Amino acid sequence: MSYYVYIAIERKEAILDPQGKAIEHALSSLGFTSISNTRIGKLVRLKVEAASPDAARHIGEEAARKLLANAIMEEFSVIEVTDQPHLSVGAHA
Amino acid sequence: MSYYVYIAIERKEAILDPQGKAIEHALSSLGFTSISNTRIGKLVRLKVEAASPDAARHIGEEAARKLLANAIMEEFSVIEVTDQPHLSVGAHA
Repeated sequence: MSYYVYIAIERKEAILDPQGKAIEHALSSLGFTSISNTRIGKLVRLKVEAASPDAARHIGEEAARKLLANAIMEEFSVIEVTDQPHLSVGAHA
Repeated sequence: MSYYVYIAIERKEAILDPQGKAIEHALSSLGFTSISNTRIGKLVRLKVEAASPDAARHIGEEAARKLLANAIMEEFSVIEVTDQPHLSVGAHA
């Protein structure tokens, strides 16, 4: 069966995020004064053929460990395994 | 109070994702033959000063609408509002 595995990849807290800083300044210029500490990560979606959601999650974690995430600067987590091609959390806008 | 608002930004299904394609090929070379249709999105974390989680979510949605997401090519969703500086979903690795 096919599953969609969503993997969030974020820089570790101690690592500077210049892209996030740039967005923080832009938001501040637009009047979003209540926003600070903006960080940009990656959200990878893999379509995985697997026997079960757990097996799909395992394959996704392997892929993150071996290729997608840089263990020195980043940390990753599988945030969802679903049979739908979109995240179930949050309302799409 | 401070909240961390996580916003997932993905290209619309109809829009090509060359970065995703590149990763798909790399994964296939590494022997991940069960993975296909790889797509890369952004995961933005904002720290928002707001009176309630709902107010923080609203500010995050406004920021996504006005700056972070390109409504023509992308869709976004607020996937989490939390008082912790990390996603609660998924186990971090």
